[in-house]
Amino acid sequence: MGTLTDLLRGHPAMNHVWSETGTLQAMLDVEAALARSCAEHGVIPQDAVAPIVAACRADLFDIDALKNEASAGGNLAIPLVRQLTAKVKRADIRAAGFVHWGATSQDIIDTGLVLQLRSSLVILERQINPLASSLAARASEHRTTPTVGRTWLQQALPMTFGLKLAQYLDAVGRLQDDLARHQENVAVLQFGGAAGTLASLGDQASAVSRSLARHLGLNLPDIPWHTQRDRLVSVAAWMGMLTGACAKMARDMSLLAQTEIGEVAEASAKGKGGSSTMPHKRNPVGCAAVLSAGVKAPHLVAALFSGMVQEHERALGGWQAEWDVLPELAVITGGAVATTADIMSGLEVHADRMLQNLNVTRGLIQAEAVMLALGTHIGRLPAHELVERASRLAVSSNRPLLEVLSRDAAVTDYLSPAKLAELLSPLNYCGQSTGYVDAVLAKYHGRSSGLGACGEVLNEREEDHGRA
Amino acid sequence: MGTLTDLLRGHPAMNHVWSETGTLQAMLDVEAALARSCAEHGVIPQDAVAPIVAACRADLFDIDALKNEASAGGNLAIPLVRQLTAKVKRADIRAAGFVHWGATSQDIIDTGLVLQLRSSLVILERQINPLASSLAARASEHRTTPTVGRTWLQQALPMTFGLKLAQYLDAVGRLQDDLARHQENVAVLQFGGAAGTLASLGDQASAVSRSLARHLGLNLPDIPWHTQRDRLVSVAAWMGMLTGACAKMARDMSLLAQTEIGEVAEASAKGKGGSSTMPHKRNPVGCAAVLSAGVKAPHLVAALFSGMVQEHERALGGWQAEWDVLPELAVITGGAVATTADIMSGLEVHADRMLQNLNVTRGLIQAEAVMLALGTHIGRLPAHELVERASRLAVSSNRPLLEVLSRDAAVTDYLSPAKLAELLSPLNYCGQSTGYVDAVLAKYHGRSSGLGACGEVLNEREEDHGRA
Amino acid sequence: MGTLTDLLRGHPAMNHVWSETGTLQAMLDVEAALARSCAEHGVIPQDAVAPIVAACRADLFDIDALKNEASAGGNLAIPLVRQLTAKVKRADIRAAGFVHWGATSQDIIDTGLVLQLRSSLVILERQINPLASSLAARASEHRTTPTVGRTWLQQALPMTFGLKLAQYLDAVGRLQDDLARHQENVAVLQFGGAAGTLASLGDQASAVSRSLARHLGLNLPDIPWHTQRDRLVSVAAWMGMLTGACAKMARDMSLLAQTEIGEVAEASAKGKGGSSTMPHKRNPVGCAAVLSAGVKAPHLVAALFSGMVQEHERALGGWQAEWDVLPELAVITGGAVATTADIMSGLEVHADRMLQNLNVTRGLIQAEAVMLALGTHIGRLPAHELVERASRLAVSSNRPLLEVLSRDAAVTDYLSPAKLAELLSPLNYCGQSTGYVDAVLAKYHGRSSGLGACGEVLNEREEDHGRA
Amino acid sequence: MGTLTDLLRGHPAMNHVWSETGTLQAMLDVEAALARSCAEHGVIPQDAVAPIVAACRADLFDIDALKNEASAGGNLAIPLVRQLTAKVKRADIRAAGFVHWGATSQDIIDTGLVLQLRSSLVILERQINPLASSLAARASEHRTTPTVGRTWLQQALPMTFGLKLAQYLDAVGRLQDDLARHQENVAVLQFGGAAGTLASLGDQASAVSRSLARHLGLNLPDIPWHTQRDRLVSVAAWMGMLTGACAKMARDMSLLAQTEIGEVAEASAKGKGGSSTMPHKRNPVGCAAVLSAGVKAPHLVAALFSGMVQEHERALGGWQAEWDVLPELAVITGGAVATTADIMSGLEVHADRMLQNLNVTRGLIQAEAVMLALGTHIGRLPAHELVERASRLAVSSNRPLLEVLSRDAAVTDYLSPAKLAELLSPLNYCGQSTGYVDAVLAKYHGRSSGLGACGEVLNEREEDHGRA
Repeated sequence: MGTLTDLLRGHPAMNHVWSETGTLQAMLDVEAALARSCAEHGVIPQDAVAPIVAACRADLFDIDALKNEASAGGNLAIPLVRQLTAKVKRADIRAAGFVHWGATSQDIIDTGLVLQLRSSLVILERQINPLASSLAARASEHRTTPTVGRTWLQQALPMTFGLKLAQYLDAVGRLQDDLARHQENVAVLQFGGAAGTLASLGDQASAVSRSLARHLGLNLPDIPWHTQRDRLVSVAAWMGMLTGACAKMARDMSLLAQTEIGEVAEASAKGKGGSSTMPHKRNPVGCAAVLSAGVKAPHLVAALFSGMVQEHERALGGWQAEWDVLPELAVITGGAVATTADIMSGLEVHADRMLQNLNVTRGLIQAEAVMLALGTHIGRLPAHELVERASRLAVSSNRPLLEVLSRDAAVTDYLSPAKLAELLSPLNYCGQSTGYVDAVLAKYHGRSSGLGACGEVLNEREEDHGRA
Repeated sequence: MGTLTDLLRGHPAMNHVWSETGTLQAMLDVEAALARSCAEHGVIPQDAVAPIVAACRADLFDIDALKNEASAGGNLAIPLVRQLTAKVKRADIRAAGFVHWGATSQDIIDTGLVLQLRSSLVILERQINPLASSLAARASEHRTTPTVGRTWLQQALPMTFGLKLAQYLDAVGRLQDDLARHQENVAVLQFGGAAGTLASLGDQASAVSRSLARHLGLNLPDIPWHTQRDRLVSVAAWMGMLTGACAKMARDMSLLAQTEIGEVAEASAKGKGGSSTMPHKRNPVGCAAVLSAGVKAPHLVAALFSGMVQEHERALGGWQAEWDVLPELAVITGGAVATTADIMSGLEVHADRMLQNLNVTRGLIQAEAVMLALGTHIGRLPAHELVERASRLAVSSNRPLLEVLSRDAAVTDYLSPAKLAELLSPLNYCGQSTGYVDAVLAKYHGRSSGLGACGEVLNEREEDHGRA
Repeated sequence: MGTLTDLLRGHPAMNHVWSETGTLQAMLDVEAALARSCAEHGVIPQDAVAPIVAACRADLFDIDALKNEASAGGNLAIPLVRQLTAKVKRADIRAAGFVHWGATSQDIIDTGLVLQLRSSLVILERQINPLASSLAARASEHRTTPTVGRTWLQQALPMTFGLKLAQYLDAVGRLQDDLARHQENVAVLQFGGAAGTLASLGDQASAVSRSLARHLGLNLPDIPWHTQRDRLVSVAAWMGMLTGACAKMARDMSLLAQTEIGEVAEASAKGKGGSSTMPHKRNPVGCAAVLSAGVKAPHLVAALFSGMVQEHERALGGWQAEWDVLPELAVITGGAVATTADIMSGLEVHADRMLQNLNVTRGLIQAEAVMLALGTHIGRLPAHELVERASRLAVSSNRPLLEVLSRDAAVTDYLSPAKLAELLSPLNYCGQSTGYVDAVLAKYHGRSSGLGACGEVLNEREEDHGRA
Repeated sequence: MGTLTDLLRGHPAMNHVWSETGTLQAMLDVEAALARSCAEHGVIPQDAVAPIVAACRADLFDIDALKNEASAGGNLAIPLVRQLTAKVKRADIRAAGFVHWGATSQDIIDTGLVLQLRSSLVILERQINPLASSLAARASEHRTTPTVGRTWLQQALPMTFGLKLAQYLDAVGRLQDDLARHQENVAVLQFGGAAGTLASLGDQASAVSRSLARHLGLNLPDIPWHTQRDRLVSVAAWMGMLTGACAKMARDMSLLAQTEIGEVAEASAKGKGGSSTMPHKRNPVGCAAVLSAGVKAPHLVAALFSGMVQEHERALGGWQAEWDVLPELAVITGGAVATTADIMSGLEVHADRMLQNLNVTRGLIQAEAVMLALGTHIGRLPAHELVERASRLAVSSNRPLLEVLSRDAAVTDYLSPAKLAELLSPLNYCGQSTGYVDAVLAKYHGRSSGLGACGEVLNEREEDHGRA
C-alpha cells in the first residue's frame, strides 16, 4: 500500500480509500448515518444528530492514540467511539449519550469496510476500462499481424498477435461482467448489535436498519452476517482472478520481450527499466511488478478463505485477519490492473521480429498444415508419422522442411511442391484467428456501448425465452 | 479421494466422476463427439464414426499403460489417443486415421474436465439440497429456542438457536444461488487445436465447433481459453467458499458440543465417535472431518489461483497443477457438504443445557438490556459506566446482577426491581431473532418452491423495473 | 506493520528495523561498506571513501522521490544510488564516480535485507526469551495443578496444568534452539554484480567480497545466490512455525477462557478487552490478535515458497514479491511472540474452576483408570466394553460413575468400592504429568544457563577463529 | 500419488511407503513393538506378544472395511485395533485383551507417520544424490562453457554455463546438508496415551516408552507432542524448499529450451515430449511436471502451517488435515527430485547456440566491461552515461557496439579500438565464474567424500553412545 518497496503505484484514489483517514472516515460515515437513522425513528432525540454528525470527521481524530488503544480493546471501533463521544461531549453533553446507539463494534467496522470496498470497486471499474479498451484497440490493430503461437514454450503454429490480445480481452471482459454483481453483493449493510439480534433497538430494529441502509446507499440483508463472510471472500476471489489475468499477460509480454525473441517491449521512458550496470537493457519493469502481484495475490485470497471458519457470533482470529489482507488485496489488484493497462497501451510491437521468428524453424511449425493435407489422402496417423520423420530429417540435416518434403515421393504423390510451399507459408495457416478476434471485439463493443453487462444478460435471457 | 486416511466419505457418484475410469470416459466422450461432429460436416468420412465411437469405452483401456506413457508424453491425452487409434485400427484400419481429428491434447483434457465439473456441480447441487433443507427444518424447529449468543468465545447476549441456524442457511442459500451461474459458466467447450486457431479444420472450424458443443451439451465460447483459466478458478473459489461455510458450522457445533457446554451432540451411531481408550466420550467426528476440509480447501483454491499465470498458448506447470487439485477440491467439497448435512440433520439439541448456560453469568449477559433501558433516562455512556460497575461488583461479590442493581439507587431511581427482573430474563431479550429466522426461511421456501434462484432473480429484476 | 487495524503492536525496535528509514539505512550501510572495501584493495581511490560514507545516512534522502522512481526503475536501489551519487557529487565530484562500484541493485537490496533480517532475529531472540521464561515459571508454578486434558474438545483425562504449559515450552524451546542456526545461515553476503560473476571487479573480486563481508559482519558464501532463495525461505518458515506455536497457545487459552469453562483469563487492564456494549465481558483480545497472525502467517510463508521459482540470474516477480512479504512476516511474528508472552505472563489461572470442571462428568473422565485396572483382571477389550456400558448407564441414568460401577458385580468381583473411589479421583490419575514438566524444565534451565544454543554458537565461532 | 493425471512418476519405494499397505504396516509395526515393550516390563504377559506380533501384517487386513469404519470412528487406528484384536482373538483369546495396551489412537497414527517419514527421507536422500552428482558432473563439464547471464529475462552479461549449474548445486547441497538434521528431528516417538500423560501405564510409563523407542529405532522425546507439530512442519518446509529448488531449475531449463533460444533440450526418448499434432516439437515435458510440483508444493506446505493451530491435547481439523497433505508432499517432492535429476543428467547442451546467443546483441551485453574500463579513467557515472548513449546509438543505427564506440573520441581518448575489441569479447568477461564453480564443487566433493553431513551425524551418534 504505497510502501517503499512496492513497485505497483496504485491509483491515488485507491490509496486514499484505504489510507488511515479513509478507514476512519468510512467508520465515521456509518456512525453519522446511525445517528440520523435512530433519530428518524425516535430512538434518539433529533437534536443529538447535528453534534454527532459534526464530530464525524476523520481529520479531527488522534490517529496515534487510536492505534495504541485499538490493540488493547481488540478493535478500532472501541477507541473511535470513545474519542467520538468525547468530541460530541464537548459540543453537547447530552448528545454524547447517544453516540453509537444500538450498534456493536463489528457493525461499524464491517459496514465501514463495505463502504471502502464499494469505493474500491468503482475505482477498479475505472481502472479496468482503459485496460479493456487498450486490449481492444491493440487486438484490432494486430488482427492480422502474424506471430508465433507457442505451447510448452516451444513454437507451435502461426497465429495472429490480435488473437493473443483477444484472449486477454475475453478474460478481462468476463471479469468485467462479474463486477456489477459483486458491486451489488458486497454493498450490504452490517447491523446486528452485540450478538446479531439487534435487541438493543427493540421494536425499532427493522425501521432503523432500513433507514441506515438507505442513508448509506447499501442493500439491507435478510439477517446480519457477522461470521458469514462469503460476500467478502467472493469479491476477494474476483480480485485475485483479475490479478491473475493481469499476471498472465505480464508473463507473456516478458517472455516476448526476451532479448532473443524481441517481439515486444514495454514503452521506454526516462528512468524506466534501465539497469544500474547494464546501460543497454530495457527491463520489463512493469511486467515484474505485475508478476510480483501474481505471486502474492493467491496467498492473500487464501488467507481470507482460511479466515472463513469463524466462531459463533463473532470470530477470534478469522475476522481480524481480514483487516490487513483485504486492503492489501484491493490495492495490489488496482496496481496490477493499472500497470497492465500501461504496459498494453504503450507496448512496442515489433511485427518484423514476429515474422523473423516465424521463420526460425524453417517450416517446421507449419508441419501440421502438411500433415492435415496429407491426412485427407492417407489418414491422420500415417500422415503424422510421415511428417514427423520428415521434420526430424529437416532438423538433423539442417534443411528447410519444404526441401525435405519436396524430395519425399510418399508426400509428392499427393502434394505438389507448389502446394507444399503454400501450405508452409505461415500467413496461410492462422486459422480462425481473425474470426475469434472479431467475436471478442463484437462482445467488447456491445459491452461498452452502454448496454453493459446487465443489458446483455437481459437480452440473452429474452432470447432464451424466445427460444423456449 | 477415498484414500485410506480420508475421513470424508464422499458421494459414490462424486467418487465415480473423478475415478480413473470417470476421467478416461469423459475424455473419450469428447473424442466420440468429435468424430461425430467432424463427420457431420464432411471433415472425416461418415463411416469412420461408428468404429471410433465403439472404441470410446473406458473399460477397454489399459490404465497402467496410460499412466506410464502419460508422464513421458506430458499428458494423458497422448497415450489415450494412441490406444484409441490402435483399438479403432483393429476394427477398421481406415477409420483409425480419423481419430482425434483437428484437436489438440488440451482440447480433450479440458473439455473432459469440464464434463466432470458439470457432473460434480449436479452432484453438489443434490448434496446441498438436504443440507439446506435440514438447516431450514432445524431453524424452524428452534425458531424460539433460547440460547447464548457468543462473541470472542465469551457469552454475549441471548438469541434463539434458530437464529444461529438461519445464519448458516442464509450463507448456504447464497452459495446455492450462485450454483446455476457456475453451472452455466463452466460448461464451456474447449476446442482450439494446437495453438488455439483451429487452423487444422480450415473452413469447417466454426461448424465443427458448434456441433461439438451441441453433442456435448456445452456452451460455445467466443474464443478458445487454453491459458485463460478464470472460469475454472471461479468455480473452484465457489467450492472453497462452500467448504468454508461448512467448516464454520463444524467449528460452532464442535464448540457447542464441548463437555462443559453440552448444548449439542452429533448423532450417535455404532462405532461413531467412540474413543479407543475413553469409553464415555462422544467425539464430534463429523465436525473434525469437515474442519480438516476447512484447513485444506483454501490451499487447494490458492494453488489454482497461483496456476493462473500460464504461458502463451499452453502453460508449463500452471495447467498441469490443475489435474490433481481440481478433483481433490471437488471431492472434499462434496464430502464436507454431505458430512455437514449429516451433522445438522442428526444433531442432538439440548435446549435444557442452553437454558442452563444462559444462567451461568447470573444476569450479566443481560446487562445490555438494563444499560439501554437506563440509557434512555441518563444517556448511553453514563448508563454504560453504571452497569459496568455493577457487573464488576456482581462478579467480585459473587452475587446475581439483579441483586446488585436492585440495591443501587442510581438505578432504581429509574428502573423498579420488577422492571429489572423483566429486563434480566433472557427470554425477553432475543431481539429480532425470530424475525430474521422468518426472513431467511421465506427466501429458502421461495427458492425451493420451484422458482429457484433464476426465477427469483427475474422477479427481482421485474420489481426493479417496476420501481424505476 | 503498525497499520491502523493491526492489533499486534510489535516491538518498537522491530518496527524501526523495517521502517522506511530502516530499509534505506540498511542499503546505505552496504553502499558505505562497499566503498570501504573497494578502497581497501585499490579498486577505488581511498579519498573517495569519506564523502561516500558521509552521504550514507537515510535521513538525508527524499523518500517520496525514491518511491516514485523505484516503480519506474524496477527497484529501490536504482533511485537510491542516483540520489546518493548526487549527494556525494555535491561534496566531492570525483568521489561521486565511485559510488556503488561493481555492485548490482540486487546486491544492495539483498544484503540490506539480510542486515534487516539479522537485526530481526536478534529482536525475536529477545522477544522469545521472556515468552520461554514465562512459560517455564508458570509450568513450574502449576506443575501439580490438576486440570482437564481435552481431546476432540471433549474432556478426556486429568492432567496437570503445568503439563500443558510444558508442552508449549517444549515447542518454543525447539524453535529457540533453531534460532542460532538461522542467524548463522541468513547472515550471508550477496555480492555478485550484474550477473553473479563479479566480472566488474576483475581480479579484485574475491578480495573485495571478503572485505565487504567482514565490514558487515556477514558470512561469505561460496557463490552468489541471486535466484537461490532457500536461506530466506528457511528463516521465513521458522518464523511461520513460531507464529503457529503462539497461535496454538492462543487457541487453547481462548478456549479455556470461555465463559462456561472459565479456567483462565487474560490479565485485565484499563481499556483491555472491554466490549462497547457488554460491560461484563472480558474478551481474550490478545488471543484474537495472535490467532489473526496464525491465520495470516501460513499464507505469507507460502508466498515466499511460491516465489522460489526464480528465472535465470535475476527473477521477474518472485524476487520482488519478497519485498513486502518478508517484512510483514517478521513484524507479525514479533508481534505474535510479544503478545503471547504478555498473555502467558499475565494469565489469571483459576485452579478452582479447573477442579470444578474435573468433576463435571462425575467420574467419566476417570473411566480409563477403572478400565485399565479391570483389564489386568479380565483383559483390555472386555474391560473396555464393560466400562463403556457402565459409562452409558451413568449418563442415561444421570448418576455418578462410581455409583454405577459399585453396583455392578462384574466389576466389584475384581475392584472394591474403595478401590473404585480411589481410581476415580482425578488427582490420582495425572500419570507422568510432573515427570514431563520436570524434563522440559530441566532442558529449559540447561538452555538458559549459558550452555544452550547461543553458548554453543559462541563456542563454534571461537573454534572458527581458532581454525582460521 | 500415482494418480492417472500425475506426471511425476515417483520412486516405487516412495509409492510403497505411502501406499495403503505401507500406511497400515507402519501402524502395525508400532502395535507390534508396543506389545513387545509392554511385555518387556511385565505390563502385559510375555506370551501375549507372539500372537499379537504375528497378526501385525498389513496383508491380513480388510482395507475396504477399514476405510468405511475410519470415517465413523474419526481415525484409522480405531478400526485397525478392532480388526487386529479380532485376528489375535482367533489365535489366542487371552492375548487379544492386551492389544494396543496403554496407547491412544494418535500414538499409533503419529508414530506410524514418523516411520513413513523416516523412510521417505532415506528415499529422498537416495534421490538427491544422483541429482547432486549430475549437477556436479555437468558443472565440471561446463566449467568454462560461455553462456548468457540473463536478468529480468534480458541478456545481461556473459557467464559460464557451469556457474549456472553450480548455483543449482549450491542450493541442493545446502538442502542436502539439512537432511541429516531433519532425519534426526523427525524420528521421534509419539507415545502419551489418551491425554499425553501415559497415566494408562502407571509406574511403567517411562520404561515402556524407552523400550518402544528402542524397538522402533526412534528418539525418545522429553514429552509427548500430540498438538505440537513443528517437527512435522519443519520437515515439510524442507520438502517444499527442495521442490522449489527443483522448480527453479525446471523454469530455467524450459526457458533455455525455447525454440528461439535452443541452448538446451531434455533428452529425447520414444514417446517423450512429442506433440500429438506438432511432430517437430520437443516439449520440455519433465520441466512441466516439475513446475506443476512447484505450483502445488507451497500450498501443501501452507496447509500444514495452517494446521498448527491445534486444540488442547488432540486437535479437531488441523491434525486430520495432515493425513493427506504430508503423503502428497513427500511423493511430489520425490517425484520432483527424480524428474529433475533425469532432466539434468540427460540434458542436451548446445554450446554452439550459447555462443550464437552471446552475439545476438552485437556487443551490448559486454557494455559493462567497457563502462568499467572507462570508469577508471572518467568516473563511473560519466562512463555509465557515455556507454548508455553509445548503446542506444548502436541499437537505433543497427550497428555493432564496437563500431560505435570506436568512433567516439570521448571513448577512444582512453581506450584503443584493440582494447575495446578485447573488452567486448564475451569470453574475456566471465568474471569469477570458474572460481565459483570450483568452490561449489570442492564443497560437493568434501560432502560426498564421507566427511559431509552424514559423516558428521555418524560421529555425533558415536559420541552419543560414548556418553551413554
